[in-house]
Amino acid sequence: MASAEIITVGTELLLGQLVDTNTTFIAKALADAGIDVHRETSVGDNAARIAAAAREALGRADCVIIAGGLGPTVDDLTRDGAAAATGRALELHEASLERIKAMFARLGRPMAENNARQAMMPAGAIVLDNDQGTAPGFIVEEDGRALIAVPGVPREMKEMITQQVVPWLVKRYGVEATIVTRVLNTIGLGESDLDARIADLFHAGVNPSIAVLAHYGQVDVKLTAKAATRAEAIAMLDELEPRIRERLPDCVYAVDGGPIEQVVGELLRARAWTLATAESCTGGRIATMLTSVPGSSDYYLGGVVSYANEAKLDFLDVAPDLIEQHGAVSAEVATAMAVGVQAHLRASCAIAVTGVAGPGGGSEEKPVGLVYVALAGPDETADVRKLMLPGDREMVQRRAAMAAMTMLWKAAR
Amino acid sequence: MASAEIITVGTELLLGQLVDTNTTFIAKALADAGIDVHRETSVGDNAARIAAAAREALGRADCVIIAGGLGPTVDDLTRDGAAAATGRALELHEASLERIKAMFARLGRPMAENNARQAMMPAGAIVLDNDQGTAPGFIVEEDGRALIAVPGVPREMKEMITQQVVPWLVKRYGVEATIVTRVLNTIGLGESDLDARIADLFHAGVNPSIAVLAHYGQVDVKLTAKAATRAEAIAMLDELEPRIRERLPDCVYAVDGGPIEQVVGELLRARAWTLATAESCTGGRIATMLTSVPGSSDYYLGGVVSYANEAKLDFLDVAPDLIEQHGAVSAEVATAMAVGVQAHLRASCAIAVTGVAGPGGGSEEKPVGLVYVALAGPDETADVRKLMLPGDREMVQRRAAMAAMTMLWKAAR
Repeated sequence: MASAEIITVGTELLLGQLVDTNTTFIAKALADAGIDVHRETSVGDNAARIAAAAREALGRADCVIIAGGLGPTVDDLTRDGAAAATGRALELHEASLERIKAMFARLGRPMAENNARQAMMPAGAIVLDNDQGTAPGFIVEEDGRALIAVPGVPREMKEMITQQVVPWLVKRYGVEATIVTRVLNTIGLGESDLDARIADLFHAGVNPSIAVLAHYGQVDVKLTAKAATRAEAIAMLDELEPRIRERLPDCVYAVDGGPIEQVVGELLRARAWTLATAESCTGGRIATMLTSVPGSSDYYLGGVVSYANEAKLDFLDVAPDLIEQHGAVSAEVATAMAVGVQAHLRASCAIAVTGVAGPGGGSEEKPVGLVYVALAGPDETADVRKLMLPGDREMVQRRAAMAAMTMLWKAAR
Repeated sequence: MASAEIITVGTELLLGQLVDTNTTFIAKALADAGIDVHRETSVGDNAARIAAAAREALGRADCVIIAGGLGPTVDDLTRDGAAAATGRALELHEASLERIKAMFARLGRPMAENNARQAMMPAGAIVLDNDQGTAPGFIVEEDGRALIAVPGVPREMKEMITQQVVPWLVKRYGVEATIVTRVLNTIGLGESDLDARIADLFHAGVNPSIAVLAHYGQVDVKLTAKAATRAEAIAMLDELEPRIRERLPDCVYAVDGGPIEQVVGELLRARAWTLATAESCTGGRIATMLTSVPGSSDYYLGGVVSYANEAKLDFLDVAPDLIEQHGAVSAEVATAMAVGVQAHLRASCAIAVTGVAGPGGGSEEKPVGLVYVALAGPDETADVRKLMLPGDREMVQRRAAMAAMTMLWKAAR
């Protein structure tokens, strides 16, 4: 079994200013590929210390992955450290320089001189292209050992590790087991509720393994099967998936899908429905989620952030006595907001949210966390849900937005 | 100046199952005490590897702190590793055994036999009591170097580091230096542009050090001064700060401040201005930023996400022939959107954004990245900026929102 070490570079790590999540991601990716990680090291932005750590690690492991220190500034010294550790010179890699120049040209901006430094590679390196940013990575092989450098920007690092580094390692070290993963994307259940429903299905070392990954109200259940062949691994997942699904009725909105806003967008497009939004306590979060999806103008018409009551009256035609009678945070006002924005924009459906996000503004009758979500559907249907959401201001806002997306998904699926 | 290394122990770290926040905490505590951390290492639950890592670290640094592996199970091997690294035997520490027994007695539970293992200490060690749990820590001194072990349970580790380890180190190494940091929060310049303007002021090892930390269009410049006294460190920062500022005119929006939306909110509140928003390509991002700040209802009235043209006509009273004549993405329409939402909500000022976020929707005349930001101010003033923003959809949306915040900041400061 191939052995690996991970080195992360950055003085901010040694000062305790940044939590090192890159190491966690890379370690997990290597473990999933069947590669053993024996040690992890962090060093500062110092070429001699990077070189020393890399040399030592290469003396112990089959491959060493360095993350960080590939930026354009004088503080970015991983290129120098890797070259020193492997006794090579840095040489200009023309193709990378052209790629970086082309990237700036596309943006209509001049390339800063220091960006050229990013195209300097240890002699004889295999260059790893970076689709997400300027810094290319590289692999240097020496006596059957590999020194691999990837950027420290998480988005760039993740893409390069997943798409290029792991496949190269699997091929290079003939890692045998095939690993197939399948992600069930769920919405509507919190992480611990979901965990409690399926906890008896997984324990340490079981294959396929089950991991529960939460991101603010949306929870992914990741199934990972290891087997000798791909077909075998897929068969194992096919056996497990329905057992998970029956525990999570009305929660799985996609398999290996994108975020809920993308899946909702696909459903709206398929039905040729248009959508409008009216947001009070979520303050634009639902609109932001919807418009993060390319092409969302096909179905999303727009909406109102009715933060002050006057915005509810002026833009949404909510009757003043409705607010007076029931309060701005009420089922009646939520419904009126949805119906109002639907009518203004002649949308097939509309979603509206009103609530108390906190920390101020709560009362005994209407405490922080009280949220109403209303959906105005086609054919003059309307539906409203009352929620009591836990957490601080940000959590209440995110969870309320997620509840709105859940309602939309159930209506459009 | 005393140098330190940190070693964290746990196979789950090497499998990527756990993010190593202990290292971050210890690094921060040492930095604050003026102790330089040169390297951080993680190893698995393996006595030989713990011993090797500890020996190597003691060869480089004045003190080495190991966190984790002090539990009662056979997997907890830091005691064995530390004893091996310093060539000592493990001996029963009677007082610790009594303390552990007493702790169980207080809980009315029998002590499991393996808990006795936690009272085994390297011969000659200084024992560190643990008020929060069963595992004592220890310090072994060897040739003027110190090997220090603390538990991996964060609560126990934090208490022991803060209350016992740092005070011991400060006394032992006569650490005198004080570290003072100051963050200049900037907006309006990209990371590499900003870096290029101040790069000549910093190079490796210079004091005060300068670090450039970017988060999506908002860039922090962190100055860190080390000196014998706090007053001296502050004087160094006072000397450096204006030299940085003169390179970054109209960019520093706060010192040790929060995000731009919070600072803009404070300015609006101080002027008793109210604000409205009209967003096309940013799709609610500006509203979301503004409403993420607690108490933003004091100055933010709300706004419109005018994604489709009909929303611009219906909610913002943009004249149809204005769109026909200049296009929805134009200085004229941006200004009309700002003026329209300002009038509807009777706001002191309003900000509006229209543009092409991409990836689709661009043309030769109006390419992806073209964005107009308009500000309608008090006294019927209006201002509009044309921008060509680089990056993918998400980056264009974020940068456009940040440009709007910059305009607001300049108007309200």
